[in-house]
Amino acid sequence: MRAAVIHGPNDIRIEDVPDPRVQHPGDAVVRVVNACICGSDLWAYRGVAARVPGQRIGHEFLGVVEETGAAVSGFAPGDFVLAPFVWSDGTCDYCREGLQTSCPHGGFWGEVGSDGGQGEAVRVPYADGTLVRLPAEAVAEERLLPSLLALSDVMSTGHHAAVSARVRPGSVVAVVGDGAVGLCGVLAAHRLGADRIIALGRHQARTDIARAFGAADVVAERGDAAIEAVRELTGGQGAHCVLEAVGTEESMRTAISLARDGGAVGYVGVPHGGSAGVDIGQMFSRNITLAGGVAPARAYIPELLPDVLDGAIDPGAVFDRTVGLDGVPDGYRAMDERSALKVRVAL
Amino acid sequence: MRAAVIHGPNDIRIEDVPDPRVQHPGDAVVRVVNACICGSDLWAYRGVAARVPGQRIGHEFLGVVEETGAAVSGFAPGDFVLAPFVWSDGTCDYCREGLQTSCPHGGFWGEVGSDGGQGEAVRVPYADGTLVRLPAEAVAEERLLPSLLALSDVMSTGHHAAVSARVRPGSVVAVVGDGAVGLCGVLAAHRLGADRIIALGRHQARTDIARAFGAADVVAERGDAAIEAVRELTGGQGAHCVLEAVGTEESMRTAISLARDGGAVGYVGVPHGGSAGVDIGQMFSRNITLAGGVAPARAYIPELLPDVLDGAIDPGAVFDRTVGLDGVPDGYRAMDERSALKVRVAL
Repeated sequence: MRAAVIHGPNDIRIEDVPDPRVQHPGDAVVRVVNACICGSDLWAYRGVAARVPGQRIGHEFLGVVEETGAAVSGFAPGDFVLAPFVWSDGTCDYCREGLQTSCPHGGFWGEVGSDGGQGEAVRVPYADGTLVRLPAEAVAEERLLPSLLALSDVMSTGHHAAVSARVRPGSVVAVVGDGAVGLCGVLAAHRLGADRIIALGRHQARTDIARAFGAADVVAERGDAAIEAVRELTGGQGAHCVLEAVGTEESMRTAISLARDGGAVGYVGVPHGGSAGVDIGQMFSRNITLAGGVAPARAYIPELLPDVLDGAIDPGAVFDRTVGLDGVPDGYRAMDERSALKVRVAL
Repeated sequence: MRAAVIHGPNDIRIEDVPDPRVQHPGDAVVRVVNACICGSDLWAYRGVAARVPGQRIGHEFLGVVEETGAAVSGFAPGDFVLAPFVWSDGTCDYCREGLQTSCPHGGFWGEVGSDGGQGEAVRVPYADGTLVRLPAEAVAEERLLPSLLALSDVMSTGHHAAVSARVRPGSVVAVVGDGAVGLCGVLAAHRLGADRIIALGRHQARTDIARAFGAADVVAERGDAAIEAVRELTGGQGAHCVLEAVGTEESMRTAISLARDGGAVGYVGVPHGGSAGVDIGQMFSRNITLAGGVAPARAYIPELLPDVLDGAIDPGAVFDRTVGLDGVPDGYRAMDERSALKVRVAL
């Protein structure tokens, strides 16, 4: 079969790789129908996150079960399924508590020795614990595919930011980051009943989506000017809830400063700036909570899926380009240059 | 009148100062019956926190109202009252929400231009917003005074750590810091229904109090060895809730490492180590929440007071020495040398 492989910075290739097969009784093999490229894949693409040359890549996909191991009881060939971006055994303490990202048997697609999501098929470990069934009619209805696919990572991660920032009815929310996760954070905050959402961003294609997702205000400024602008919009107090969806030192510093006293920052941007942006003195005197981390998408998908199926939310609006598998290298280039927001791969 | 004054590092003196008087219609003058010395006063005593020579000191006291301004409606001369360690107007958004430490009209006792708690009397701004009434019979009953006094700061702060760390029935809790706040954190966690409390400490006088307050286990190790010991006690997982009551880089690093994946660190130690101890990468991958800050004692006192009055909690056990006002300089020395845990000042 064919799959995307990373050989080094800026070097993604589509190559022939061994067909996946059931290796353990809990495995399933899933033929990929849709995959996509994540902002976090760009850290590898840019060489910031190290990869072994020849490593597989991509961690978001949905598809059809082709084969199951003897121990798989929840799925059968022909089932349509969605994969969260982490696999997990479904039985450990953490999985039962809904923190599947801490499963001791868990792992990330594209890790050395595992398949990536950007390919024709994937071996799924712990299929019963990992996969979520999709209604066949929903998959057949092509227009729902982007939003279903978004649940694999970006929508679940935006939701994690909103939940971690304690968004509830009446909250004033600020969102740092205009990538797919930040935009999904706007949508998640809106879904959770936020009273007012302020999106930070300056690219109109993105801020248009933010407004469509529920942002009442857009702040184009950055750093201190953004802090000033948000304070002006909030009677000098700041936002109850701040969603941090970037992960740099600067974005974390901005996020903490945007929070109202007693408020919370939900951070889901993979940290790339150390802790220097975490101003603990400011957090202490103003009682700011910092919560978040890698999103347990497997816990959130069952909660968010009905809203996608009935059209209440359409996170698939973050996809602005669709390519075939051969178009994946171009998709990386486009996202790296910010000429594409998020690229869907239709197989 | 006479009061404690700080002139420089290791230089606390008892001096004649002007009698406090009502300066604003919302003021009250309170004659101090009991005050105490706080671990955080030692930062000033040691010269780590800057003070203007001649500045007043002390931020914990209870006493009797002597005089009230024309706008004070909730108190009259002769009332017994407890002061939280921050004054607050009682009417702003933050005060109404229970975050009185963020009151724009608030301040800390002993700030330049204000009275400190370690003196014969104190001018209390915003008396209606700041003070909490104590039953006269409780004050008359001398044995309750230490526990009432502890509500002014250390017990409320320990409670804030426990609440911020999300202690609830069934929680496994670890407490970093064996000072009065850490010990009160043990008591607060026990009061909130923690299933098991692990106190870090090596001084038997202190760990005895921790056990009396509800700690099931005491870990004498520090740093990596403490992390290892707590993991062994918790089936390798760590504590759901960690109370950080020190404020150094090392203690914050330890606290985050002690937390179970998905757990929370409630931090109330005044930060003296910058953010270097906040390992954001570890927090991200393990979904650790960091919450806390300066405790809104004014919000907690009404909740905790009934438990002191009926004897359900006795945070006054943290006081192991009582001095008169003239003994205050000796009290600082004793706490600085750790020969006293917490010193009460009986006037």
